[in-house]
Amino acid sequence: MQGVLAPVLTPFDSQLNPDEGRFVSFCRKLLDDGCNGLVPFGTTGEANSLSVEERERLLDALLEGGVPAEKLIPGTGCAALPDTVRLSKKAARAGCAGVLVLPPFYYKNPSEEGLYRSFAQAIDKTGEGRLRVYLYHIPQVSQVGISLRLIERLLKAYPGVVTGIKDSSLELEHTRALLRAFPGFEVFVGTEKFLLATLREGGAGCITATANVNAPAISRAFRERSEERQREIDVVREAFEKLPLIAALKEAIARRSGDARWRAVRPPLVELSPDERATLKEM
Amino acid sequence: MQGVLAPVLTPFDSQLNPDEGRFVSFCRKLLDDGCNGLVPFGTTGEANSLSVEERERLLDALLEGGVPAEKLIPGTGCAALPDTVRLSKKAARAGCAGVLVLPPFYYKNPSEEGLYRSFAQAIDKTGEGRLRVYLYHIPQVSQVGISLRLIERLLKAYPGVVTGIKDSSLELEHTRALLRAFPGFEVFVGTEKFLLATLREGGAGCITATANVNAPAISRAFRERSEERQREIDVVREAFEKLPLIAALKEAIARRSGDARWRAVRPPLVELSPDERATLKEM
Repeated sequence: MQGVLAPVLTPFDSQLNPDEGRFVSFCRKLLDDGCNGLVPFGTTGEANSLSVEERERLLDALLEGGVPAEKLIPGTGCAALPDTVRLSKKAARAGCAGVLVLPPFYYKNPSEEGLYRSFAQAIDKTGEGRLRVYLYHIPQVSQVGISLRLIERLLKAYPGVVTGIKDSSLELEHTRALLRAFPGFEVFVGTEKFLLATLREGGAGCITATANVNAPAISRAFRERSEERQREIDVVREAFEKLPLIAALKEAIARRSGDARWRAVRPPLVELSPDERATLKEM
Repeated sequence: MQGVLAPVLTPFDSQLNPDEGRFVSFCRKLLDDGCNGLVPFGTTGEANSLSVEERERLLDALLEGGVPAEKLIPGTGCAALPDTVRLSKKAARAGCAGVLVLPPFYYKNPSEEGLYRSFAQAIDKTGEGRLRVYLYHIPQVSQVGISLRLIERLLKAYPGVVTGIKDSSLELEHTRALLRAFPGFEVFVGTEKFLLATLREGGAGCITATANVNAPAISRAFRERSEERQREIDVVREAFEKLPLIAALKEAIARRSGDARWRAVRPPLVELSPDERATLKEM
């Protein structure tokens, strides 16, 4: 997998239930807009606000809706190992390109050994030869990071299975350290701000929330690899970063599509305030 | 509900599946040892390492095993609202004394409004008149606290439903602030170190991990309310606090019962190291 991947937003209906129809249409549109792949059920997709069954139904809807499994890296990492195993098994059996796996995120300051066992048992218990694991490093949200030492251990124990990482640390130096330490490891950076810098050092691409609203331009920047295209996408990113990101992305899609239902987020998130909406309008 | 409640440890078998039989026996023993109530599925019980189905089966086992529902306040707060609702509904319908509800803990720095909606929707969607909610404040683990302002809003909106709190902040001043702000609200402190101090100011008791290994003495301290009894239980608490608490409690029970299976914890937790075991032995 390579290029620009969208961690897809999850649309809800008026009862705050996931809307499978709009989810499938939206995913198809993102692929049409140039995304090389899709990552349903990431932080941007409010995955941890969904039950396991809701994620399963949404994944089924995508596959039945003709979204190719080989374009999908669904998020499957949960606080509870049996949930991670159940979702990973389903994704691997469906032929998904991989799964994006958070470390268990309830207990803080877990030991390296504890995290190693979490990933190792997730892989062992999933028990699917075609499983491809992308580690999900987003310490500012999960509060549980994935160290270089842990990656080294996992790559040694599960070569060909542990395939890559989404580095959402938002620290370019961390992304560079990953690229230097693990040649061949598929490193996706979590913001398009570092797209060019990451690609120049051998990165695989980016998995970025803003691809939900700016996929054509980010895809073009990926293809052309020029400073000019990078600057263009930076402007959009910076505008959205001034606001609560997920709510702002949903607001933008609600406006663009004329479908106000897109504003809905599940608690603890809240939709944009009137002031925040005005800020977005001025952009 | 009043007195000493144990946030019950969850025993696993050699495959790391919850062991329902040992769970029921252990809960009965804790009640025999003087616990006034039990809180299955708290942080100590590794609840967020269990799937929703596993919690359901364990609760069923307790009820079928003759543990009275009115002695139970199961933890039902999950990252995903539908999971919280499903577990809360089950507990309320079974006649449990209440449910202990964590705020959704994946997204950090949620707004007060977002947290308010989380609890309000959990109560509304559970839709059971007999539901009694105990808020679970454990910011050092969940990283998402429950402010006094939020409690005030919830008490106003859901009088008679929002019943109490487990304050695991481990800050006596915070517990005192709760007691002063909300007379009649059932405040349980999260460590027996503050049992006497909390009771003196009108607190309901404690919900403390160490009750898993020291219930008779803590219950006696609750009944006698003397400085001497308080000092006795402090010594035990302090000894366990030097070690990773959950693993140390399981180690102690493994030794006492002669059943080595009690050592098992789910990742990301790990059992005590040989050095840590030696430290526990010297106590």
